[in-house]
Amino acid sequence: MAETDIYRASTFAPVNIAVIKYWGKRDTKLNLPTNSSLSVTLSQDDLRTHTTASCSASFISETLTLNDAPQDISGARTQACLRELRSLRQKIETADPSAPKLSTMNLKIVSQNNFPTAAGLASSAAGFAALVRSIANLYSLPSTPTELSRIARQGSGSACRSLFGGYVGWNQGTQADGRDSVAYSVAEQSHWPEMRALILVASAEKKDQTVATSTLFQHRVAHVVPGRMEAMEKAIRERDFPGFADLTMRDSNNFHATCLDTSPPILYLNDTSRAAIRVCNAINTARGKLVCAYTFDAGPNAVVYYLAEHTDAVAGTFKGILGSALEGWEGAKGRDVNAGSVPEGLENVGEVLRKGVGRVILTGVGDGPREVEEHLC
Amino acid sequence: MAETDIYRASTFAPVNIAVIKYWGKRDTKLNLPTNSSLSVTLSQDDLRTHTTASCSASFISETLTLNDAPQDISGARTQACLRELRSLRQKIETADPSAPKLSTMNLKIVSQNNFPTAAGLASSAAGFAALVRSIANLYSLPSTPTELSRIARQGSGSACRSLFGGYVGWNQGTQADGRDSVAYSVAEQSHWPEMRALILVASAEKKDQTVATSTLFQHRVAHVVPGRMEAMEKAIRERDFPGFADLTMRDSNNFHATCLDTSPPILYLNDTSRAAIRVCNAINTARGKLVCAYTFDAGPNAVVYYLAEHTDAVAGTFKGILGSALEGWEGAKGRDVNAGSVPEGLENVGEVLRKGVGRVILTGVGDGPREVEEHLC
Repeated sequence: MAETDIYRASTFAPVNIAVIKYWGKRDTKLNLPTNSSLSVTLSQDDLRTHTTASCSASFISETLTLNDAPQDISGARTQACLRELRSLRQKIETADPSAPKLSTMNLKIVSQNNFPTAAGLASSAAGFAALVRSIANLYSLPSTPTELSRIARQGSGSACRSLFGGYVGWNQGTQADGRDSVAYSVAEQSHWPEMRALILVASAEKKDQTVATSTLFQHRVAHVVPGRMEAMEKAIRERDFPGFADLTMRDSNNFHATCLDTSPPILYLNDTSRAAIRVCNAINTARGKLVCAYTFDAGPNAVVYYLAEHTDAVAGTFKGILGSALEGWEGAKGRDVNAGSVPEGLENVGEVLRKGVGRVILTGVGDGPREVEEHLC
Repeated sequence: MAETDIYRASTFAPVNIAVIKYWGKRDTKLNLPTNSSLSVTLSQDDLRTHTTASCSASFISETLTLNDAPQDISGARTQACLRELRSLRQKIETADPSAPKLSTMNLKIVSQNNFPTAAGLASSAAGFAALVRSIANLYSLPSTPTELSRIARQGSGSACRSLFGGYVGWNQGTQADGRDSVAYSVAEQSHWPEMRALILVASAEKKDQTVATSTLFQHRVAHVVPGRMEAMEKAIRERDFPGFADLTMRDSNNFHATCLDTSPPILYLNDTSRAAIRVCNAINTARGKLVCAYTFDAGPNAVVYYLAEHTDAVAGTFKGILGSALEGWEGAKGRDVNAGSVPEGLENVGEVLRKGVGRVILTGVGDGPREVEEHLC
C-alpha cells in the first residue's frame, strides 16, 4: 500500500416523505423525536443524493462538497456522524491489524443531488443517509441499516428513514442516549410496489422560522400519533390504500394544525397548497373513494400519493389542470399520463395552482441506498 | 285604536368580533356551544344593522327585508326568535287586558346593514341582535339584555353577544334547554374605551364548507378554552393589553388549527391572512412588546386590535403598507392615521397584502344596541 493510495466508496441514497410526521424533539443534540413517524422511500431513479466518500493518508484536510460547492464539515451534526463511523472502523482495525488504518485518514466527501436543493424536498435526509452509507461502505462496516440509522439520525432526524427502501418506521425510543431511536422496515418496496407519488414543487417562498409552543402539540404526541402509527402499519401490511390515504391526509392536517397553533404561528400551507388539497378532495369525491392522498412537509409542496392503477384519475387530473407544458411531465412517466379535464367547480382553483406550481416530479416508492461504482472524486 | 294603526320600534345593533372563539355546537337546533367565548363589541358608528320592527292588524302577512331584498322569514331560526318574543308579549297582554294585542299581529321587519354583507363581518350576529332587540322594544318587553341574548342565540349563536356593548362573555351553559347559555357583560365600553380595531377586508373568496371531525377539537374544548376565558376576563378587568393580545392571537391560532385538523381540512387563512399576521408580528417585534393582536373569524379578514395610543404604530404601519388610496382611510378616523414606513424585510409581504385587501375599516370598542327614532318602514 502506497502512501498515496486513495480508498473510495459511492452510494445513492433516497428521499423519503413522511405519512406520519416527525415534529418536535425531546433532545435537540441527538435529534431524538417526541413521536414516532413513518415514511415512504421514493425512487432513486428520480430523486437521490449521490455521494462518494474517499480517504487517503495523502489528504491534508477533511472536506465536504455538495453540488460543487464546499460545505462546512466542522458542524456538530456532521462531526457526530463521522465520530461514530470512525469509532466503528477503529474496532475493525484493532481486531485485524492488517486492515488499513482508514480511521486515521482525512475524508473527502463529494455529494450531488439530482434535484434542486431549494425545492424543499427533504434533501438533508437523503444527504445524511448517503454520507453515512458511503462512509460505512468505505470502512467496510458490518452494520445493519438500523444500526446506521442511529448514526444518520444525529445528522438529520428524518435521514434515519432514508437508510431503508419501501415503507419505513422510526421508533421514537425511550433511552436518553437514543440507542433505541432507530428506523426499521415496515414493508419492502416489493410488498406494495404500486405506490406512486406526484410532487407539486411550489414556486420559491421563504420559510417561517419559529419555536414550537403549541398547546395542541402535547395532544398530538400523546393521543394522536401512537394510534396512527399502528393503524398506518396495518394499512401498509394489508395494502389498504383508502386506509393509508385517510391516515396520511389526517396526519398532514394534524401536523400543520399543530404548527399553526404556535406563537407566532407557522403557516407552511399557502394558497397553492390549499388549491392542491381541493383538487385531491375533488378527485376522491368524484371517484366515491379515496384514490389519492396529499401530504405536506414543512413547506408548501404537495406530495400526492396514489396507486399506479389510478394514474390517469390522479396525475392525469393534475396534468389537465396544470397543462402538459409545465416542467416535469416530460420523460416516460410523465408522457404516459393522460391529461384529464378540469373537474367542475375547480376552474378558479386551477388558476391558483398554475400560478403557484413551478414543476412536477413523478415518482413512486423505491428501494434503499444503492452502492454504485460511479465515483464523484 | 284604529284597525290600521301601525306600531313601530327601531334599533341599531352592533357587530362583535370574538377574541376567544366560538366553534362547535353541542345542540345545533338551539345553537348551544361546546365552549364559552368572549368578544369585543365594535362601534355602531362604523358597523351596524339598523332594524325597524313594525306590526299592525292591517298587515296581511309577515315579512322580513334585508338591504331592500325580501328574506325568507319562515326559517326555523327566525321563527324560534319570533315565537319566544311573542310568548313574552302575550304574558303582558294577559296581565293587562288594555294592552294592545300586538302578539296577534303580523310583523314587518326591515333591516339595513351599513357595511357589505359579503365582507364576512359576522353580519348575522348584528342582524339577529337587531331583530330581537327591535321586537322587544316594539313589544315593550321588560327583558334584560341577558334574557334577550338567550333568544338571539337561537337565531345565530354569536348574536347573543351583540346584545351588549363593551367586552362580552357568552357562557356555554350546561342545561339541555339552553336557559343558562347566555351572554353577560365582562366590562362596559367605558371601562376600557381606548380599544381600537382595524379590519382588513379581504377581496372576496368563497368559503370552504365542511363538518368538523377534528381530533384536536375535544382538546380545545376541554383543555384550552376554559383557562383562557378566565385569563381573558382578568386581562380585560386589568386593562392589560399585552395579556389581551397574547390570548387573542393564541386563541385565533388555536381555532384555525382546529379547523385545519378536520377531514377535509378547513383553511380559512389565505396568503393575505398570512401576510397580515407577519405584519402584526413585525410591529410587535419592533416595539419590543405586544401593541397589536390579530384575530380571524371563519374567513380571511384580519381584525387587528390595538390601543388608541398605538394608532400610528399599528394602523399607521398598515396604512404605509397598503397605501392611503385604499378605500377606508377616508373620514376623520382614517385621515388622522399617519402612514408609517414599511418595516424592513416586509416588502414582499406588503405586495401580497396590497393585492389581497380590498378595503379597511377603522373602528373600536362600542356600546350595545341603541334604540333610534329613525324608522325604515
